Parts: sequence; structure tokens; C-alpha cells
Amino acid sequence: MNAFAMSTPGHVNPGLWRHPDNRSQDHTDIEYWTSLAKTSEAGKFHGLFLADMLGIYDFYKGPDNIIQVLAGGAQFPHTDPLFSTLDHLSKGRVGWNIVTSYLESAARNFGLDTQIPHNERYEIASEYLDVVYKLWEESWRDDAIVNDPIRRQFTDPERVRRIDHHGKKFSVAGPFSVQPSPQRTPFIFQAGTSTAGKKFAAKHAEAMFIPGMEPHIVRKSVDDIRALVSEEGRDPQNIKLLLGMLVIVDETDELAQAKYEEYLSNSDQEGSLALFGGWTGADLDKYTDDEDFAFSGPGAIQSIIDSWSATIPGGKGIKWTKTRIAKELALGGPHPKAIGSPETVADLLEHWVEVGDVDGFNLSYAVSPGGFEDMIKWLFPELKKRQVFGADYAIPQGTTREQYLTDGKGSRLR
Amino acid sequence: MNAFAMSTPGHVNPGLWRHPDNRSQDHTDIEYWTSLAKTSEAGKFHGLFLADMLGIYDFYKGPDNIIQVLAGGAQFPHTDPLFSTLDHLSKGRVGWNIVTSYLESAARNFGLDTQIPHNERYEIASEYLDVVYKLWEESWRDDAIVNDPIRRQFTDPERVRRIDHHGKKFSVAGPFSVQPSPQRTPFIFQAGTSTAGKKFAAKHAEAMFIPGMEPHIVRKSVDDIRALVSEEGRDPQNIKLLLGMLVIVDETDELAQAKYEEYLSNSDQEGSLALFGGWTGADLDKYTDDEDFAFSGPGAIQSIIDSWSATIPGGKGIKWTKTRIAKELALGGPHPKAIGSPETVADLLEHWVEVGDVDGFNLSYAVSPGGFEDMIKWLFPELKKRQVFGADYAIPQGTTREQYLTDGKGSRLR
Repeated sequence: MNAFAMSTPGHVNPGLWRHPDNRSQDHTDIEYWTSLAKTSEAGKFHGLFLADMLGIYDFYKGPDNIIQVLAGGAQFPHTDPLFSTLDHLSKGRVGWNIVTSYLESAARNFGLDTQIPHNERYEIASEYLDVVYKLWEESWRDDAIVNDPIRRQFTDPERVRRIDHHGKKFSVAGPFSVQPSPQRTPFIFQAGTSTAGKKFAAKHAEAMFIPGMEPHIVRKSVDDIRALVSEEGRDPQNIKLLLGMLVIVDETDELAQAKYEEYLSNSDQEGSLALFGGWTGADLDKYTDDEDFAFSGPGAIQSIIDSWSATIPGGKGIKWTKTRIAKELALGGPHPKAIGSPETVADLLEHWVEVGDVDGFNLSYAVSPGGFEDMIKWLFPELKKRQVFGADYAIPQGTTREQYLTDGKGSRLR
Repeated sequence: MNAFAMSTPGHVNPGLWRHPDNRSQDHTDIEYWTSLAKTSEAGKFHGLFLADMLGIYDFYKGPDNIIQVLAGGAQFPHTDPLFSTLDHLSKGRVGWNIVTSYLESAARNFGLDTQIPHNERYEIASEYLDVVYKLWEESWRDDAIVNDPIRRQFTDPERVRRIDHHGKKFSVAGPFSVQPSPQRTPFIFQAGTSTAGKKFAAKHAEAMFIPGMEPHIVRKSVDDIRALVSEEGRDPQNIKLLLGMLVIVDETDELAQAKYEEYLSNSDQEGSLALFGGWTGADLDKYTDDEDFAFSGPGAIQSIIDSWSATIPGGKGIKWTKTRIAKELALGGPHPKAIGSPETVADLLEHWVEVGDVDGFNLSYAVSPGGFEDMIKWLFPELKKRQVFGADYAIPQGTTREQYLTDGKGSRLR
């Protein structure tokens, strides 16, 4: 025995959204689904069988006329396209980090022999975003769902339109099949600081995940990005720049350092060099362990080693063999490390904000969830004491976008 | 402040899966994620930033050598491909109903001007299944995850292989990036009883969602399907055939009938005819409401009307105008209706099992969740009393496949 349902107001019963006992019009609410799942399971149904649909029933009176589908809620709108459904079910707490892919092995998983050239990937991504903006922002008016038993309209047909996108890479008719979610477009991150990447971010990103080892060098990149954002007619402070950073924190510098050494003893040199190969396009297996990459080897890694040499105590004297490189990458990868007492780590983060003009951090860990628990236990109280880190979320129940860009009352920050 | 993580044993810390405090190797467990989300939120992190990857880091020593990635758990395996991730997180309670799509409007949402021809859709689906079987069933051995700190191997590289599929429509290298989930392949349904559909189902489906109004006519289709399953070398009783059915049940026949009439007053004729257009390819808007489709109009709907005429009391005398057709479709769509007391509905279901040789039902509703609550309250106790419906699931904690195909002890039924 299956319960046969669909995430839509009118599955095989158009109009019944008008009945006072019906709740299928709450299909975007996670509580409706968890409640139905619990009821079905307790009642000994064997399964919940969910129908879905990739288009709209526009054959009757169609294809130009979809009034009857929208008014009756006849399998439309529904949920399914990933981000909008998650945005509904999470009440607007979804972000999307856009990366145009860089692994050759990924290309070979998607029908290609080799990766699409770098700049062309960004062109495709740009058209893809045009399509999803049309679907998410331009296909439905805010007031399209009227849910009006008197007019017998679930959706007002005057307030929904097709997008009819016909581009170089994509053709999509619409209308979008999901009703507007709390954020409509998920909060958009971008990672990648190539020229094409920065240009893409200046146009699309609300936040960027940026790399870098030295605050004054990252500052140049940050200034570049904010200038490009200005050129797009946007407030340059309204793109949030997050630095990747490894944090290992404990009560004292000595305890944190000891923890770091213990974690390091569990790390995996070969695995780290495999990740490094993907990030840089440099296969260090082709070299002996005598090779000092500060002076020879692939150019792609010289600037990384320069940053390490400049930021690690005694860095200039280090012989940068592949074993030494692997050690530097072993925990946290290519991001800077903040290892020490709450005061030491807080000082370092504040220095990054001040000199690098970054807005926040993507904090990584050696062990999970222990690494995050340590940050919460040791680091966050210190930042709170210094009044540089809010005691609470801006809006505890707010959307991701509100968390990042508003002051807690819905106004844009800065 | 974001917590930066990835659903993989070794995100930017290959080898740390060996550390006793690390739990990131539990990335396929929903409890790990809900616990981390709760900890992060309580600790005032603003977000959980999740990395993902479409390939494997096979540049270092590569591309033929991935030992170092597998041993270190260096961003591999991870979760992401939809079905396997859901199968992990739900502990194996995922089914997949394969439909090759039939709406023109769906084609126009995916870059096409019109639908791919029917039989070609099944050819594409067949190759698609070949690909996912290779990924889900043939890329990983059951014992591939060794999680062995002594050998310093998270995954044993000898027990994972690429699939290197190069077909007519798809090229996928692999290896599959998700470790084997409880069911590996989700429990496979198929819906569609065309000649191509039955052939596809006989090869691939473990269950079918079948239509039909009259048990003795459905029986012919059921016999056909079981014969085709036999021809594929499979046990013909080991494909489970589920009939779609609307149930409206209450204490007495009169109460159930009154409920039906009340629901019907909320239904939407235009919405029902829109769905009917998509299902049959017949746009009834082109006809007046005098037209009797039992005698004229599109041939596609004659057999449907014949079934209704045969099964509805006084059906032969009904004038099948579009309004009358819409009324018949209004609740439950094209499936048969079981409206009445627990005894009446149970009798009808038993009759379908006996005469139609169906194995189960996909039960639909007029209002949700009320319709399912009524089935649980009125119908299921009656079926239990008759000893034709289990008091409990076969295996309360079992996978979907175990629910359908085994006797509760892991043995195949029948």
C-alpha cells in the first residue's frame, strides 16, 4: 500500500485546494511533508509515492492558454527543481557557490574528452545564470498565488508568464514550475579569482570565497573586485568577501600547537599532493624529493611558495621539497592557518579584516565536528568580548541573504 | 563566519579520518549532519558552506593512478549524485519511478522544440540505466571502504574501478564518487504500459505502476507483463504490480458517498480537462458540450469511456459529454474509484487482487492528508481483520527493496 501524492496543490484532484480539509497547497512547507510521512508510517502505509512533472499541461486549449491549469492548481505549481525546493523547505536558507569546474576527471564524467576552455566555461555559466534569473525572478509575480476559493483561482494566470529563453547554449520555455521561494534566487557565492572569474563575480556574486596567504596582497585583489563591482553599478561594499582559513584553537598557544602536531601525525602526504595536483595542474610525483620548488619546477606553484616563505617563521630558509609542501598543505589545504590561543587567533582574524578588507571567513578544520566545537568554545567568546562578532545572528529566523546583507531589520548593511 | 565542510572523509585534510576525534567519515549518516547543523547554529556560525566535486583528483600520478586519493580519502568518496545520497541519508528507503516524459511542454523546458519520439525515449532511458547500473553496482566492491588506520587506507584502491562507459548517448568515466549505499540501486518502478514500456519494465522494473478500470482487462495486461518478465529470465512473481486507485472511505457507504459529493463540489472541470489533454493528447476544448465522446471524437478516449460505461452503474446510458468526462476525472484522475464503507472498499481491493492479479495499490486522495488519515482509520483495520494486509511492515527498519520483495528475513517472497 502506497500513499500516492505529489508536491503540488492539485495532483489528480484540481480545485480541491479549495476544500477546508485539504492541505496539499502547503506543499512547500517541510512540516506538511514530515507530518504526512509520520502519519503514513504510523498508519502502516509501505511508502509515499511522489509524482513529478517536467512541464505544464498546456495541451488542452493550448499551448498558449494555461489559465485552467493555474486556476485549478492542476499539477502546477509543483516543487522539484533543486534550489527553489530547498529554498522553500529550508525557509530561505540556501546559498549557491558557483564554480565552473576545473578537474579533467569531471569533464570525463559528463560526456567530454577534456575540459571546456576556461573563458568559455564562464560564458556558459553566464547564460545559465540568465536563464535561472528569468525563471526565479521574472516568471512569477509576488502576488501570483491568490488561493482564492471565491474566484476559484489557486494561481492568478495574469501574474505568471513563460520566459521563452532562446540563447546560445540553452532553450527554456517555462513558466517556472515552482512558486516563488523565500529568497527566489539562492544567495549567490562565487569562487575563482581569474580575470574571467572576477568579472563574473562582479556581475553575479553576492559573496566570494577568496584565497590568499598575505593580507596586504589579498587587499589588492579585494580592491580590484570592489572596483569591478562598482563598474557594474553595484555598491562595492555589498559583495561579501570571505577568506578560507584553517583554525586550530585551544586555551593556550602551546595547547593549540600540540593539537596541530598531533593532527599532523595523522595526515596523508600522498592525498595532499593529489589535491594539490588538481588545484595547480602540477604533478609533483614527476620530481624527486630533493627538488626545491622555490627555485625550480612548475611556475604555477612559485607564488604559493613565495607566500609561504613570507608568512611562515623562518620561511625564507626552508627547502621547499614536495614533502615540505605536503606538510604545509596537510591541514586546511592552500589556505592560511590560525593556530593558537583565542587571543592569538582573534588577533589574526582582526588583522585580516583590517589590512585585507575581507568581510568574513570560511573556517576549515582538521577534525570534524571537533574543530568547529573548538571554535565555538574558544574563539567566538573572544571575538564577542572584542565586539567584532555579533552575539546573535542578525535575524535568527532570517534568510541567508538577510544574514549576509542586512542589519537585522531588513535594511541593507553599509 | 561559515563552517567550511564537505561531505567526504578528507576535505582539506587527507588522512585525518584516522584521528579518533574525527567523524567526517560518517558523512553518509544524516545524524552527523543534523548534529553538526545544530552545533553550528547554537554556536552562532552564520552558515555551513559545503564544497562538492564532480570528479576525482587524478592529476597527481595520474590519470591512471588514484591510489593516493582513495587511501587518504582525499575528497573521495563524497556524496552528491542525487539518488545515492538520498539512499544513504534515508538508510535505503528510496524508490525511483522511471517515466520517459510525455509532455511537449517538458521538452521545451529542456532545449528541444518537440518531444523525442516515443521508442527513442525508451532507448535513451535504457542506455541511461546501463550507465547508472555500472556506477551503482559495478564500480565499488562491498568491502571497498576499509577505514583502516594501520594500513593507512580509507578506501582500498584495489576494490574500486572506473566504468569507462562510451555509448550512443552517454560517456561517463567514473569511478562512481559515492560509496555504496544501502540499496546501491534505488528500488526501481516503471510507469507506462505501451509495448516499449512493457519491454523496458520487463528488463528493469522491480515494480510497475499500472492503470486500468476493469480487473479482467487489467489481468490480460498483467499476464503479458509477467510473461515478458519470464522471457527476461526473471521470476514473473518478482515484479510487483501496483494499481492506481482513489479511495474515499467512511463508516458507512452513505457517509462515504456524501463525502465524495462534497469533495466533487470543490473540483475544477477546466483543470481536469487540462490534465486529461496531457494524458491522452485530446484537446476537448475543440468540441461543444453536446458532443458524446462515446460515439465520436478522438479515438484515444473511446477505450477509457468504454471502461467507464462498463464499470459505472447505468454507465451504458450515460451521455459522455466533456462535462461528464470531467466529473469522472475530477477526483483521482483516470484511476478507478473505491468509495464506501470499510467493507465495500476492502471487497473491491480484494476483487482486484483476485481477478486482476495485482500485488498492491497506489492510493490517491481527494484531500490530503485527510484522505490518507481516513484510509488508516477505516480501511486498514478492515484489511487487517481479513488477514490480507500485514499488521506491520515486513521489516520496520528495512530498505524499500526489502519492504517490497522479501519476507522480513531478507528472503525473496514467492
